[in-house]
Amino acid sequence: MVPEIHPNESVFTWAAPPLKFGPGALDEIGGEVAATGAATVLVLTDPGVRDTGIPDRVRETLLAAGLKAEIYDGVAVEPTDESITEAVEFARQREWDAFVAIGGGSAMDTAKAVNLLTTHPGELLDFVTPPIGGGKAPWLPVKPLIAVPTTAGTGSESTTICVIDFLGLHLKAGVSHPKLRPSLAVVDPRTLLTLPPQVTAASGMDVLSHALESYTAIRYDAKAAPEDPMRRPAFCGSNPISDVWCEMALKLVGENLRAAVCNGHDLAARTQMALASTYAGTGFGNAGTHLPHANAYPVAGAVKQYRADGYPEMPMVPHGQAVSATAAAVFRWTYPADPARHLRAAELLSGRTFTRTDGAEALANVLTELMTDIGMPSGLRSFGYTKDDVPELVDGTLKQTRQLAVVPRPLDRPAAEQIFLQSL
Amino acid sequence: MVPEIHPNESVFTWAAPPLKFGPGALDEIGGEVAATGAATVLVLTDPGVRDTGIPDRVRETLLAAGLKAEIYDGVAVEPTDESITEAVEFARQREWDAFVAIGGGSAMDTAKAVNLLTTHPGELLDFVTPPIGGGKAPWLPVKPLIAVPTTAGTGSESTTICVIDFLGLHLKAGVSHPKLRPSLAVVDPRTLLTLPPQVTAASGMDVLSHALESYTAIRYDAKAAPEDPMRRPAFCGSNPISDVWCEMALKLVGENLRAAVCNGHDLAARTQMALASTYAGTGFGNAGTHLPHANAYPVAGAVKQYRADGYPEMPMVPHGQAVSATAAAVFRWTYPADPARHLRAAELLSGRTFTRTDGAEALANVLTELMTDIGMPSGLRSFGYTKDDVPELVDGTLKQTRQLAVVPRPLDRPAAEQIFLQSL
Repeated sequence: MVPEIHPNESVFTWAAPPLKFGPGALDEIGGEVAATGAATVLVLTDPGVRDTGIPDRVRETLLAAGLKAEIYDGVAVEPTDESITEAVEFARQREWDAFVAIGGGSAMDTAKAVNLLTTHPGELLDFVTPPIGGGKAPWLPVKPLIAVPTTAGTGSESTTICVIDFLGLHLKAGVSHPKLRPSLAVVDPRTLLTLPPQVTAASGMDVLSHALESYTAIRYDAKAAPEDPMRRPAFCGSNPISDVWCEMALKLVGENLRAAVCNGHDLAARTQMALASTYAGTGFGNAGTHLPHANAYPVAGAVKQYRADGYPEMPMVPHGQAVSATAAAVFRWTYPADPARHLRAAELLSGRTFTRTDGAEALANVLTELMTDIGMPSGLRSFGYTKDDVPELVDGTLKQTRQLAVVPRPLDRPAAEQIFLQSL
Repeated sequence: MVPEIHPNESVFTWAAPPLKFGPGALDEIGGEVAATGAATVLVLTDPGVRDTGIPDRVRETLLAAGLKAEIYDGVAVEPTDESITEAVEFARQREWDAFVAIGGGSAMDTAKAVNLLTTHPGELLDFVTPPIGGGKAPWLPVKPLIAVPTTAGTGSESTTICVIDFLGLHLKAGVSHPKLRPSLAVVDPRTLLTLPPQVTAASGMDVLSHALESYTAIRYDAKAAPEDPMRRPAFCGSNPISDVWCEMALKLVGENLRAAVCNGHDLAARTQMALASTYAGTGFGNAGTHLPHANAYPVAGAVKQYRADGYPEMPMVPHGQAVSATAAAVFRWTYPADPARHLRAAELLSGRTFTRTDGAEALANVLTELMTDIGMPSGLRSFGYTKDDVPELVDGTLKQTRQLAVVPRPLDRPAAEQIFLQSL
């Protein structure tokens, strides 16, 4: 008998929520929520975003549409299991027909968790990917969730993922399910005008890294088919649809991020960065982030003293800083998996031309140049890490199974260690 | 008092259903329908597609997933109010939890109408855009609808639109609402391998025209803001997201349609055409088709004797033929609205370079060349129309308010007449 050969994957998937984009979109949220049939709505945001006045303006549109609306502004800037519990306890005091999340990834991720835990029994860890959590999938209907990003960064408005810092575990981990995806993304570039330069820079590097990771992720058809096609991994790998959007996003970031950091009131640059971030969400949300994101979770989770300019006064490594801290080393290491694609990415980001002679350094250098220009911290030492922290960081990385599944070459412990050491 | 200036539109919208793409996707439909919680499912298709064996193969996957499944293969190749009524009467005999549409635009549009009319009272004309119909919006929940396109053409798997030939009215018209959008699109390029050359050609020209019309549609921010933002028109006009997809689709059609027509078993060309069609659906479904589509409705609706090779033995102008019949004349007329964009479209379709010296003829010639190469009928005379039919055709065009709203320059009766006369 001829043994059966396990086939390669031949299918990719793609999904994104409906989008409303443009100056003025913010003022249509009342009408949008009313159209879902909701009567009561909870707006979730953080204190910094509340101060911009945007959440109260949105609340006015909700009231004008005849809805009952309250604002919860206790979202933590990097959500933890504790901050989520607080938000859930607040939300559970009454019945909400819909949620509106206003802010960065923090507000949107918190709202996803609140939506999940006000419609389902249990706690967040039950829904986290194994081996960290219980890996449960939501089995009940959830409520409409309108996501309003006010940083051009996370793309969380379009994804199924919610990332939480589990304080007791000293690491960040994610819950991912199609039911967590917002039902509508509302992107109004005017909301970006007052974002501080450091937040603009970190959010922009998150967009960049999201595009670059999706673009260099393992191809969907260059891996084994899943045992059960109905239980495909959340990340499907790079594919002809995500590729188009990654290229566009890399080009927009390369052309506009510096200007948006230098002058936050440059509405043209802000609009292009909002588009780049939207491309990340709508175009390649499920292609997959890989090693820079896997590394970012322990880097942010194990922080001791570091405080970032432009962010609240507390020890934290902002997500965009954590993601870009190991990027140059990662892409130097992934280069052999697809040299042409890495060189193309360097070209899109820089507007210059590269050949095989430039090799793995081309993309690494382009990333370093950009990070220097926009004042990003240049190594893990900036966050207070030393050589002695590397084993713990590697432990954290090796737990990120969702990301590791789409790294374009096999990652072992020595390779992960080397990347962290080069990134110090 | 200073009078208020009515503002320009500043917002665009975008939406598409989740997608599953690739060889093998077809065999996952049972699992997908079961995941919706459905127990009974009706598969809608036409007799020609039934003969390919695809619907029965899908039914096997539904049975294997523990579902009760029936096939209705009475879909008309160009759906009419009468053929829809028959399908609805069949479907109303029992309760269905989900629908699967397999075929071209006909099967998918019929399934949208069946989904609407088995969940709502009333008849189709109640839901058609005014002035032709009553303009009602669906107000009740509809059922999950999985769309499986077997022609790389309509993009109906991704859109909110269902187009019907109203026999008594002698014209085609559409129903459009977000609730009609399929809940999942499953695109398996293997289903295209046996499509006859004439159907491949007409479907491919429909993809092309869809891309070209969306690309040249009035810009979303170059028209007046709507009085009520919650009642925006179905078509929002060209925008930075649709533009990316249109350019990709035009390039793919220019590079692959000839090969797919010449050798239907060229799986690479078929896959690229399936991608182009998917881009049309997911990328620019709501940017808007304009004049070629507006013209196509009366051209197909008023047909007398014409029979198309590769299609059933009945008088009909296939949608792709009707759409492309006036395309060259339309784009010659729209050229002044945005010369650079028309030249760029000609370049993407042909792989050649054009300048302003080539003018409006560049795109018109590229279209004519392609249509000649793939054996498309070259004028309205081929369908049996003469100069005497032009007033009736113009009447039909001027009723297509959804399309006319995004034509890039004002259309009056003389201009419409001129386009039809040039297209004879």
